[in-house]
Amino acid sequence: MGGVRARFCSVCGQSVERRIPAGDNRERDCCSHCGSIHYVNPRPVVGTIPVVDDHVLLCRRAIEPRYGKWTLPAGFMEVGETTGEGALRETLEEAGARVELGPLFSMLDVPHVEQLHLFFRARLLDMSFAPGEESLEVRLFKEAEIPWSELAFRTVATTLRWYFEDRVRGNFLTHVDAIVYPERALPTLSMP
Amino acid sequence: MGGVRARFCSVCGQSVERRIPAGDNRERDCCSHCGSIHYVNPRPVVGTIPVVDDHVLLCRRAIEPRYGKWTLPAGFMEVGETTGEGALRETLEEAGARVELGPLFSMLDVPHVEQLHLFFRARLLDMSFAPGEESLEVRLFKEAEIPWSELAFRTVATTLRWYFEDRVRGNFLTHVDAIVYPERALPTLSMP
Repeated sequence: MGGVRARFCSVCGQSVERRIPAGDNRERDCCSHCGSIHYVNPRPVVGTIPVVDDHVLLCRRAIEPRYGKWTLPAGFMEVGETTGEGALRETLEEAGARVELGPLFSMLDVPHVEQLHLFFRARLLDMSFAPGEESLEVRLFKEAEIPWSELAFRTVATTLRWYFEDRVRGNFLTHVDAIVYPERALPTLSMP
Repeated sequence: MGGVRARFCSVCGQSVERRIPAGDNRERDCCSHCGSIHYVNPRPVVGTIPVVDDHVLLCRRAIEPRYGKWTLPAGFMEVGETTGEGALRETLEEAGARVELGPLFSMLDVPHVEQLHLFFRARLLDMSFAPGEESLEVRLFKEAEIPWSELAFRTVATTLRWYFEDRVRGNFLTHVDAIVYPERALPTLSMP
């Protein structure tokens, strides 16, 4: 979510107004006092699928939303870092896990919360993982043990489903899709 | 770029201070008056590689930065849209071009400008393209005609180079890399 609606200009402190700036085609928060235009854009969330042998590492969330539910280690990308650096950082922060980063595995748009989720494959480098401040518990799951009904986010469930499908086939792809709620038409991604 | 540094709280209009919030590990713009924390995250830029036969469609920029230089149609992703929807919108706005969207082709981090560039392959549906307000000129280029020294952005040059390499091999992949300036060490993306 974009958070609480902006009412004031972060540059000069005067009130902003919602209008379409010259040369633009949609409403923005505009400051008539200093001329600033405050754009809002979707935020990237980056994470990993940490794997060792036939196990995947999941974290049980110690924070809202979805307190107590299981997730892949992931979080908001920070300025100044790359997607890969962010995914490694979140894996260390949330799961205390050191991994070797692999290829991009899934990119999932989540337009109703203004987010873009990116998961990289990753190989767990040692077994010294431990829950960080935002996790209650961190543990390894075989495919048959995955708590499907207790997963925190649809992007995590979708990514794990794709992961196990690809593993059976022995061919890991980069998957792209959108989690759309409420349902609406999406552009066709059909070109071979 | 993150733009002008925030000095005031966009929620209540009081001054913000730069400090590490409780439970966090990096400095944010925090409002002591209303308690708001103003996070800043990298912004996704989405675009297409519009192709017809052995030609690629490029736009000559009518805006800064890089006025007069050539680029693939691309721009900042808007809230409420998916990456694919944003790429289609930018292609229509900048090049007046209707395309069928194909698979994700490249993802390029650009950490020094706090951006993440995503390009989709696309097939031009008709030849009625025309420059939008942000373009001086739109035209089709064969590989040998690409104005390599007159391209606007390194992400565009890298994406086009990958595109022509993949086309020769007859196998289009999803490419992931980072444009890093100044040079610094990046996490290895080496897992097979």
